This record gives sequence, C-alpha cells and structure tokens, in this order.
Amino acid sequence: MQERIFRVKKILRSLRGDAQKIFTQALRAADPKNIISSQISLRKKILRIGVRTYPLSRFERIFVAGCGKASAAMAYSLERILGSQITAGLVNVKYGHSLKLKRIRIQEAGHPLPDQKGLEGAREMKRMLSNLTEGDLVIFLISGGGSALLPFPLPGISLAEKQKVTNLLLGCGAAIQELNTLRKHLSVLKGGGLARVVYPATLVSLVLSDVIGDPLDAIASGPTVSDPTTFADCERILDRYGLWEKIPLSVARHIREGVRGNREETLKEGAPALTKVYNLIVGNNLLSMKAAQQKARSLGYRPLMLSSLIEGETREVAKVHAAIAKEVLLTGNPLPPPACILSGGETTVTLKGKGQGGRNQEFALAAALEIAGRGEAVILAAGTDGTDGPTDAAGAFADGETVERARAMGLDPWRSLEENDSYPFFKKLDDLLITGPTGTNVMDLRIMLVGKPGRKNIHRG
Amino acid sequence: MQERIFRVKKILRSLRGDAQKIFTQALRAADPKNIISSQISLRKKILRIGVRTYPLSRFERIFVAGCGKASAAMAYSLERILGSQITAGLVNVKYGHSLKLKRIRIQEAGHPLPDQKGLEGAREMKRMLSNLTEGDLVIFLISGGGSALLPFPLPGISLAEKQKVTNLLLGCGAAIQELNTLRKHLSVLKGGGLARVVYPATLVSLVLSDVIGDPLDAIASGPTVSDPTTFADCERILDRYGLWEKIPLSVARHIREGVRGNREETLKEGAPALTKVYNLIVGNNLLSMKAAQQKARSLGYRPLMLSSLIEGETREVAKVHAAIAKEVLLTGNPLPPPACILSGGETTVTLKGKGQGGRNQEFALAAALEIAGRGEAVILAAGTDGTDGPTDAAGAFADGETVERARAMGLDPWRSLEENDSYPFFKKLDDLLITGPTGTNVMDLRIMLVGKPGRKNIHRG
Repeated sequence: MQERIFRVKKILRSLRGDAQKIFTQALRAADPKNIISSQISLRKKILRIGVRTYPLSRFERIFVAGCGKASAAMAYSLERILGSQITAGLVNVKYGHSLKLKRIRIQEAGHPLPDQKGLEGAREMKRMLSNLTEGDLVIFLISGGGSALLPFPLPGISLAEKQKVTNLLLGCGAAIQELNTLRKHLSVLKGGGLARVVYPATLVSLVLSDVIGDPLDAIASGPTVSDPTTFADCERILDRYGLWEKIPLSVARHIREGVRGNREETLKEGAPALTKVYNLIVGNNLLSMKAAQQKARSLGYRPLMLSSLIEGETREVAKVHAAIAKEVLLTGNPLPPPACILSGGETTVTLKGKGQGGRNQEFALAAALEIAGRGEAVILAAGTDGTDGPTDAAGAFADGETVERARAMGLDPWRSLEENDSYPFFKKLDDLLITGPTGTNVMDLRIMLVGKPGRKNIHRG
Repeated sequence: MQERIFRVKKILRSLRGDAQKIFTQALRAADPKNIISSQISLRKKILRIGVRTYPLSRFERIFVAGCGKASAAMAYSLERILGSQITAGLVNVKYGHSLKLKRIRIQEAGHPLPDQKGLEGAREMKRMLSNLTEGDLVIFLISGGGSALLPFPLPGISLAEKQKVTNLLLGCGAAIQELNTLRKHLSVLKGGGLARVVYPATLVSLVLSDVIGDPLDAIASGPTVSDPTTFADCERILDRYGLWEKIPLSVARHIREGVRGNREETLKEGAPALTKVYNLIVGNNLLSMKAAQQKARSLGYRPLMLSSLIEGETREVAKVHAAIAKEVLLTGNPLPPPACILSGGETTVTLKGKGQGGRNQEFALAAALEIAGRGEAVILAAGTDGTDGPTDAAGAFADGETVERARAMGLDPWRSLEENDSYPFFKKLDDLLITGPTGTNVMDLRIMLVGKPGRKNIHRG
C-alpha cells in the first residue's frame, strides 16, 4: 500500500515537471525579445514584419515608438535587428522597466495612474512622428498598460481633469468599454489619433495583447485603429450615470461641442489615415497556448485547446475545469489520457476573506478540492506575467493528492479557499510556481495533465 | 444588409432544430421504457440483463422491487418482457407517478418528504424479499428520489425521529454525504440493507442515476451496495454540529451503542451478502450524452463530450461554455465548426432576485449575453426531467442574436439575469424548450452547436 502511494506521487511529480516545461514554452512564445526576433528579420536589405516584406530602399527613415510595460524589451530586440537604420525612437514604459538602448529613448512613466512623465513622453512622441512623409516607416510597439502610459489629453483639458472623468466612471461601475469611449474622445493619440499623426508614413503596429479576445480598439485605447464610438455615445454614457454636473467644465463643453459636430471625431473606418496602417498581434494568450500545445504534444500528451477566452468567478471556473479532468480519468472524454487540456484568459476573484493569494493560486486550490483522490491529474494555473495577485508566485500546482497532503500538514483547504488564503496554503505545501517577473503579460494559462505518457492509462468505458 | 440578417436567422433556426433533435435523442436514452427494453431481453428462455445472461431454468422465482420516481415506468417495461414469469413485485413511487400493472404492485408514497405510505411499501417489500432461496432472482429498480421513497427506520426509531435528524443536519449546513451517513445507520434497507434481506438470492439492481458521478452508495442511499461509512463517522458528525442534545434519544442511544459495537454495522465490502449482487447503471447523464453525441454526428457535426460532471454557479459555468463556443468561432478550437459541444451535470443558482426561472434557463440567459453578436452559435440548456425550476419549461435556447432580439422587444437581459428572471425573458422571445414531464431524470444537458453542417464555415487562424 505504501509502495502504491509512493508510485503515484512519483508520477504526480513527473506530471508536474511536464506542466512546468509546457508553461515555460508558453512564456517563450510571449517573450518580447522572442516575439520581435521571430516577427522581424532584416535580410538582403529587406525588412520582414510578420508575413509582410518591405524593401528597405523604399523607406527614407524608420522611426520606433510605443507604450506598455513590455515595450522596452520589444524595443531592445528591434534595435538589435535594425541598429543604425533607426532614425529615432521613443517608448513610454512603467517606472523600473527601463533598458539602456542606443537609438531608442525609453521614457519611464506612471502606471496604473498616468502622470506628467507619461504626458511628456507622449508629447515628444507626437513631435517626433509629426510631419513624416510617404517614404517613412513607423514601427509602433504596444503592450499591456499602454493606455495609462500614453496619456495626452486634448488642448484645453488637463491630465487631472481627464483622470477625474475616469475616476467618476469607475466609481459608478461603468464598463471598461464605456470608460474607453470617453478616454478616446478626450485624447490626442487614442482612438486612432496616433495613426492620424503618422499619416502619410507607413505605420506597422506590433501588439502584445493582454486583453481577452484582442480587441484592437481597446488595447491601449486603440492609438492605431479606427474607433467605432462617437461623441453621441459619450453623451449617452454621461446621461446614464448622471455625471454632467460632476465632470470638469472643460470636458462637458468638449463633449457637447462634439455632439454638435464642432469637434473632430476619433478616427473612423475608411479614413485615409488608415490606408497605410498594419496592426499585427505578435503575442497573445492564444499564441502562447499554441506553443504550449506543441510542447505538450512533443512530451507525448494529446493536447486540447479549450479556449483562450475564459472569464468568470475563479472558483466556479475551476470546478468546470476539474469536471473535465475527472471525465478524462473516468471515461476518456473529451479525449483519452495522456491528455493535456489547455485554457487561457483571465478570471476574477470576488474577495470574501482577508487572506493572501491570487486568482491562479485560488484556481489551483478550488481545483484541488474537486480532484481530490481522483488519481493521476495535475493542474497548473499561472499568470504569464509571473505575478499572481500581491504575491511572489506566478501560480500553483494542484493534483489528486494536494488535499490529502494538506490535511496531513494540518491545513484546512476549504477554510483557505473561504478566506481567499491560497498563498500560505501552497507555500506550506511547496506547491507554488515561482518564476519572478517574466517581462511579458498575455494573461493566465491553465495546464491540466491527465495520465502519464508511455504508461498504460486506465479509464472506464 | 437586411438579407444578411435574414440569412443568419434562418441558419440559427436550423441550428435550433438540430439542437432539439439531439436533445430528444438524449432523452430517449434515458427513457425508463427504452432503458429496460434495451437492457433486458427474454429469448430462448435466456434472460439477458446488460452483458449478463441468466438461463431462466436457473431461477425458481423472479421478484421485482424498487423505488424512485421513474421506477413505475421501468417496472411497466419489465412486466411487458417477463409477464407471468414474475412471481411478485412491488415498487414505491411518488404520488401521481403510478401505472396500472398486473404482476407488480405500485405503491404511491411521499416525496421529497418520506411518509407512512412509503414506510408501508418498504415494510411489504422487505416481507416479500425475505426468506428467499439461492434459486431466486430479484430485479431491483432504482431511480431518482429513491431514498425518500424507501423509508424504513430501524426498530425503536420512528419515521418522525429519523426525519428530525435529517432536518437538524440540513439546518446546520451538513454535506449530503454526512446526511447519508446518518440515514444509512438508522435504516433497515439502506447502506446495503436490501442486499442483506435478499441474500442468498441473486440481486440485479438496475440504476437510473440522477447524481453526478453515479456514486452507487449515495443513489437512494445505496440499498444494494456496501457502505464505507461507520457508526464512528456518525459520532463525529453529531460531534461536529453539536447535535447530541437535539436529536431524539432513540437515535442517540442507537449511535452510541453502535460505536460500542453493540449494533449491527451497515453492509461492508467483502460481505457474503454482496457476492450475488450486480449493480448496473442503465441510464445516466453520460449515456444520454453519448446518445446525443451519436445524433450530432449523424447530423453532420463534429461532437465533443466535455464532461458529464459539471457543477458550479450557473452563470459562471455558462461563461466558460460560451468562451469555448466563441473560441470555436474564432480559431476552430477545441475543434472546428460545424461543432457540437456537449456537457452534462447539475449546476446551482444562488438566488438574488425574485424572478421566475430555473438553472437551465438562467444558463441560457447568461450564455446569450456572452455570445451576443458572435454569429452562428446556438446553445440549448435543458433538464432531462422536462422541468426546469418551478416553471413549465425544460430549458431554453440562446444564440448570437438573442440579446439583440430581446432588446428590440424592450427586454433588458442583464436585468433579467440579475433578478433570476429568465423564464419571462425566454417566454416573451418564444425561446423556451417545453417538453412536459419526461418521466425520467439524468440531470441537465447543454448542447452547443457552432456552425452549420454542409456550409463553408469560416473561422480565423
């Protein structure tokens, strides 16, 4: 009996090692440096970006700009490829995310609260990208946090006033889309503003997406794409939440003038400024999941990509995932073991307790309770940014023996879940995944391994 | 433009028709009559039950017994096959679920609250099945509600006293497993008691399961299987909830005596009484899902059985399902359209509003909000018993245009969801699925159809 338990544990350890390898591969696919060097190459004086090819002789000058937490690392790789071909560059990043480059200046700025430094960078970026010609190329690097890092209110509206509107909307529970609608209509560069500045140069925007479904008009509030929302939408939103009396006068006046047609709308579909814009998603949850799938296959698992769009209350989402893992063990559905089921996206935690944890660790804890005693299954839930909630862990491992081991150590898994206290739980079990900050963010990944390749895996039916 | 909308609507109507056909097939697989006639046949004086064969000459007598809401219909089919071969029979069913049979007596009784009629039936059943010999066969028909319909407290404990223990445990939030532990230790027929009565006759138990994972010891509190729980477990449970002073004296005395070893334990693994017992799951969520899968394939869909073990808060579970449907539309994962994704189990609704609905209609509503505008996807969520919550509907259909159509009719889907008011919402849209009571119950099914067979289905990537 003792031997059997040991044997299972060894298998679980081995599954855990595999899960970590698969996660590492997913991270590589989202690494800013890898993304740039795999998407952009410079050969025979031809610049390849994604599937497009640009003869270098076509361009008089190449400019690099961008915003976002991972954009310094993207710029670093770009500079290594293009070197002195870059005329000038400027990228706004979060404090502490700077890198020393030769051609591209890195401007540190405030995040999640935009600040004066961000505004200065944005202003300088606009100056650098104004008055370009048809012969110029702009490569724009967008990553998570880009919206806050590229603040540039319209003339007559201050940063503090724009911020006040954001806070008022957040305070009355407005949706993120509603927030973005207002933001775009108060901003110089958002809602396609950057594309307008850059025109008639060619604009290639490389996007590392940390938003579910990669909505280009929402990522960094869409500086390089058309905006479907209007001043009339802004009016309706301010009506709905009764904010007209609360917002700064400058903002109210601007929106009212816009509704009357006396202000320039955000960039709309079919605008000439969009004719030379190419938006490429170079990193996202799906691409990382595909890399994970490939790695899983190479390790001998049958992979299944469930969805990269998973949202919802963490512990409930975990129950559904666990139900699928259990079905694999019981009946070999949706696919027989050895199986690797992948899912991505970003769940939410409604805090009830005062514990320490993150959504991925909570996912692992809830899943552990569901698969307790069910055998050879390991679930790794982790954030690709390497930081899950206010902890030093990226996520945690759950398996069929987590609950048993925890109880043997005097831990109460139900209580830990109730208290949102997953971090101390997994720390004590030594089941945390700690990667440190990864320098990227394509949301979360769940990797469920059921059954070990190369063994006879038994299931009913 | 108008034409395009019409075309999509026609496709959605067609998908809806397919979903209904698939659901109907799933119901057939759970129909008590079909189950019995497909599991039991009488040819050349050989009785086949499942994969087992019994030469009729081997048995001196055949008895039929059982309990559960669907057990009258099961008995009806059994009598049609075996006719005068049946020596005697008695089945306890819920009031109003009776059928007129010749050989098998149907006893109507209370459910969900057990009553005197149930006790009378159980007593008579015990009498009928006592003093059998090695040459006898008992076919026992178990279906949902069986536990309440077969009440038989041990001597010295009254039905009211046993009920009081149940209520006390429910009142302090005890788990269903804890409830069953006590029930089995206060009962004559549960926890393997029936197997003990029937021994040394052969006992074939045919189970129509309405419990997630088909735990035989939990379904109807396991009259025909061994019981892993003990008097010591009962003691711990009463300790945990501090119920010793509150439970009837007769019960407290019985448990204490049991702990001391002065009372007979429930039937344990390895007991002789189990050597001639065969438990067959003849209908459950998984078997219905398999039938649905087959039907989906015959209609041209690629089927994927996600899990028959889905639990969790309905609207959150719906989000995960919708995320999968959206991924099929966007990238052809986990499988390309035309796809039929199936899931089963039983979700829960935490009531916040005062509306009218059921968990399946709430599932459809939450899913509709998630897939709004996403194209050719239809989601049918329905209960296999034909009754979803306190409504006359089995469930409802959601598709990519549900929200748009609802808004055009002045309905507010978010509000309906917040108020748990899904029934009027779908009724007004004419999107309810109404089957009437189906006479069976293998929990809920979700059928998600994405893309129409025979058409070119477009998805990215």
